Parts: sequence; C-alpha cells; structure tokens
Amino acid sequence: MTHTASFDGVRDAARQIAGVAVRTPLIESPALNDRLGGRVLMKAENLQHAGAFKFRGAYNRISRLTEAEKSRGVVAYSSGNHAQAVAAAARMVGTSAIIVMPADSPKVKVEGVIGFGGEVRLYDRYTESREAIGEEIAASKGSVLVRPFDDPFVIEGQGTTGLEIVEQAGPSTIDQLLCGTSGGGLMAGINLSMAALSPDTVCHGVEPADYNDTQISLAQGERLTHAPAGGTICDALMTDRPGELTFPINRRLADILTVTDAEVAEAVRYAFRVLKLVVEPGGAVSLAALLAGKIEAKGLTTAIVLSGGNVDPALFADIIEGRFPGMA
Amino acid sequence: MTHTASFDGVRDAARQIAGVAVRTPLIESPALNDRLGGRVLMKAENLQHAGAFKFRGAYNRISRLTEAEKSRGVVAYSSGNHAQAVAAAARMVGTSAIIVMPADSPKVKVEGVIGFGGEVRLYDRYTESREAIGEEIAASKGSVLVRPFDDPFVIEGQGTTGLEIVEQAGPSTIDQLLCGTSGGGLMAGINLSMAALSPDTVCHGVEPADYNDTQISLAQGERLTHAPAGGTICDALMTDRPGELTFPINRRLADILTVTDAEVAEAVRYAFRVLKLVVEPGGAVSLAALLAGKIEAKGLTTAIVLSGGNVDPALFADIIEGRFPGMA
Repeated sequence: MTHTASFDGVRDAARQIAGVAVRTPLIESPALNDRLGGRVLMKAENLQHAGAFKFRGAYNRISRLTEAEKSRGVVAYSSGNHAQAVAAAARMVGTSAIIVMPADSPKVKVEGVIGFGGEVRLYDRYTESREAIGEEIAASKGSVLVRPFDDPFVIEGQGTTGLEIVEQAGPSTIDQLLCGTSGGGLMAGINLSMAALSPDTVCHGVEPADYNDTQISLAQGERLTHAPAGGTICDALMTDRPGELTFPINRRLADILTVTDAEVAEAVRYAFRVLKLVVEPGGAVSLAALLAGKIEAKGLTTAIVLSGGNVDPALFADIIEGRFPGMA
Repeated sequence: MTHTASFDGVRDAARQIAGVAVRTPLIESPALNDRLGGRVLMKAENLQHAGAFKFRGAYNRISRLTEAEKSRGVVAYSSGNHAQAVAAAARMVGTSAIIVMPADSPKVKVEGVIGFGGEVRLYDRYTESREAIGEEIAASKGSVLVRPFDDPFVIEGQGTTGLEIVEQAGPSTIDQLLCGTSGGGLMAGINLSMAALSPDTVCHGVEPADYNDTQISLAQGERLTHAPAGGTICDALMTDRPGELTFPINRRLADILTVTDAEVAEAVRYAFRVLKLVVEPGGAVSLAALLAGKIEAKGLTTAIVLSGGNVDPALFADIIEGRFPGMA
C-alpha cells in the first residue's frame, strides 16, 4: 500500500492498458503549423475510449482489483470524464460502479455514465462535499473508492499519454509541451514520462483564468485553493486545489498559462473548422493557449494534449456558430 | 500523355505527397466495435489537409506541372472539397487557381477556397455546365484544367488512401471495405490499391439513395446518369454519372450500398457523440451504411473511409441537436 507513482509504474500501466485503451493518434495539421510558424503535435485523447484520457487511469486502477474487491464494486466522484471512464472500466472487468456527479454536469457526461452501466448519484457542487459522499458510500458498501487523481495507479495510467507522445513523435525533438491541469493527474503522469524520456522538453500547465489553483500554488510552493469563481465552460477543470500526490510531481512545471472562456471557445471552434475534431472546452485549453498567443510557438515543436471531447450538443452548436459570449 | 492509372502510379503518388499530405490515422473505436460486434478501421480523411482526401489527388497532379504550366495557373470545377484541395496545392507549388463552384456550395467550402488564395467563379448547378465553364477558362488562359476524378494522376493520388489503410492495418486481414462513390476517383484509387495489396478484401461503394448513378451503371454495365433528384445533404456526392476513367476500374466492386439523408445525419451525429470526429454528410456515408445495417459487420474487420469534414456549422448544429428531418 506504499506504492508511489513513478515512471516504472507508467511503463507497467502501458502494458496493463495495451489492447484495451485506444492508442490515440498524434495528429499534425499543416494549417495549424502554418498559422503558428512551428510544428504542433496534438495527442488526440478526445478519441480515447469514453471520450477522454481518463480511461487510462481508471482502467489501470480498476483492472488491478482483487476478486473480493470486484464483488463489492467501485465508487467514484467526478465532474464527468472520470465518471464515464470508471463506469466503462468497471463494466469491462465485471464489477459495478456508483458515480457521484455534480448536479450541473453536462448532460452528455451523465448519460455517458448510464450508458456504460454506471449508477449516478447527483450532488450540489456548491453545498455538498463529493469527497465526503464518496467516502461514505465506500464505507457503507465496502467498495473501493477510485480517486480521480490522487491515486498512484491513476497517475501512472494517465502518464501513458506522455509515453505515447514521445514514442509517436519518433526522432522529432519536442521543445515544449502544454497540458490542461485541474487535479493534476494527467499533468503529473506526463511529467513522469517527460522527465524520464525527454527531460529537455519544457512542460507548461494550462488552467482556466479563474481556476488557477495550480498557478498560485506553484508560486507559493504549497497547495492553495483558488479564489471563489463564477463558473467556466471548462467543466472538466474546476477542481479547486492541486492534488496531494500530483502537486509534488507538478512542481517541475516551468509555469502555468491561463486562458479565458472566450479563448477556449475560439479554440473549440478552430478544432471544428480546421482540425475536424470534437474537443470539449476543458480539453481545448492547450490549443487555446497556443492560438491566443500565450506562448511562443514559432520555430518550435510543441506537443499539446486535446484531453477530451465530451461536450453537450447545445453548447457545441453555440460555439461553432459563434454565439458564445466574447467570440469574434 | 497516355499515362494510365495503375498501382505503380499509386506508389509513385505516395512518394510525391510524402511529407506534404497528412498521413491520416486509421482509427478504431471500442464503442463502435461493440455496437457492431466486429472491428471497424476508420481512415480519417477528414483530418487530411484542407479537410478531405481530395488534397492527395490535387497535389499529385499539380506538383507535376512544368514551370511554363505553373506560370499560367490552374482551373478546376468542384462542389467544394476538390476546390479547396486544388487551391491549397496550387498555393504550395506557387501557382494560381481559379475554381468553378456551384452557387449552392456550402459556405464553409467557398470560404475555404478563398482562404487558400483561390479565385472563385460561381455557377448555377441546374442550368450551367461546370465542365464547359472550366474548359472555357482553361482555353482562354492557357491554364491546366485539374479534373476532380477523370485524371490518372488524381486517381493515383486518391489511391494512396487505400495503400495507407493496408499499411496501417498491419497484420489485420481486412474482410471488407466501404467507401463513398461519386465521380469515383477515390473509389477507383482504392480499388487499384486493394487489388494489388489485399485482393481478397470485398470492396463496396456507397451512394446517396437518389444519387445512385454508379449503382445503376454497374447493373447495366455502362455509364448511366441517375434519375433527376431533389438534392441531398451529401453535397460532395452529387456527380450525376461515373467517370470515364474511374468506371472501368470500379467495375471490380462487389456492389453499391445506398443510404438516405436521415441515415447519413444519424451517422454524422454518431461521429460527433461517440467518435469525436467532425465528418461532413458526404464523408459519412460508409459509416451510415454500417450503422443502418446495410451490410453485415459482425465478426468481420471492415475498413471505411471518413472522406471529409467540411460541413457548415448551421447544418452540423441541426444534426447534432437532432433537428434534421427524419432523425430519431
């Protein structure tokens, strides 16, 4: 029980998820390269099973349950993508899943959980504690709580994204990498991989402007909660504090870039128009940072993660038709 | 000048477009496999440069122009995807392009041509002949007419799609392949590749129900024009007669499947919801045929081509929100 997240664990996770998770493509767009004057390698985790990178970590954790644990089921709390991933992985290994989700989760994500056979328990994001509800269910049923990021197996599963980026980039040197950061599981897993395989790649986290807890935490050198915020279209990135296990790993980040909702909406529309990819707002923050010029890409090779694609049709329609507030 | 389309030409085209065209991923979705009870390998040509497979053929043709030809520019007629591809390829090799497009072309395609620096000449799809207009411009300017399908270099360029499918499928045996068919350039190129590399793969063309000219032509053994039709959302597949060069090659097809506009809309929505890909209606006919059960996929490995992703936002919004007529 003293397993610590490491690059060896990432390699082990890669073996564990092989043939089950999708080895998503690393996509390059001549139009995007032209626009930025550099090369952009996009890891398309929106094409992952259940529509987000989350399946990697969930499957890496859940597939290691003992038969006794499987008989009691799993429980998870999540804004949506981890929820779907846990439900999908649970069904694959033959166990049940109860998912604690915010009542304001995108409908597409709640439906996704139900579609994968999961049981949904809604809670109020502003008055209830999802951790407390999750712990309570786990205690009463004896089921395993699958945490969204503060679990070494989950971090290592997400880290396979970084491993694959390096493998798929082949001989190309990756000068910099951008990845959305919320609880920090994906970012931490990728940091483990890049530190081992491509240590000179400069890694940057990306957060929504009002949900910059990792940014202020890195500045202060301790885990801090961001100021109360009024919401964001990046529903996948609303965790209010860096993870206990993820933050120490993510201290190797060069910095955190932030993007506004309007910048994210422009990126989602760009992905529709030019890349022909369905990317959800929270999955498009790295692309948004590039398109909004938050970091220099000219003459460089930049890897970014398009981390998910689970977006409600009505919001997506508003964005691609330019109706979202602040869009040009 | 007696160049005939062949598999050797496809191999040569692959060398010609290497590093310029996108080697698009062959994507697999566990959710789609589950639904159909078989494996589906999707060649994502919506991720191709300029948003459709057409760039392969256009670049393979235009990059072979002599300096004298380049100085006089190129001209093309197209419902949209070939138009954008010719404009993009022309700019890359340093020549100019005039594109003859139907006045009812999707706005996104007209804008695409202009965005790539092309000059647009609109015509009336129902009263004017695009071939005549194109020939006239070519004659008056001395420019090279880049035909959308009846050109051996164009057919060979499109054939690289099939070559890559076989290479990317690796050791997997492809039992059957589905591909949208209009003028038949992509289908013919793929037939050349499959005949050479995977002759046991059963190839099926797919057409919109009312635009079934290849279906009736194959049945009669000669190139026929389909009955007058009232329109389709598959704007990319509205050619009314198989090509002179493509039809003889496409006679090796097992058959033609047909799909309705409502079935196509369901496939576009499925691609949004589950695959997280933006596929235009004309690019989704093979997926539509599978989802609508027009062919058995259970226990088989089926390759399909998602041939383009250039769709107007308003139509896409209608489809993903289920407002298109006939959707469930």
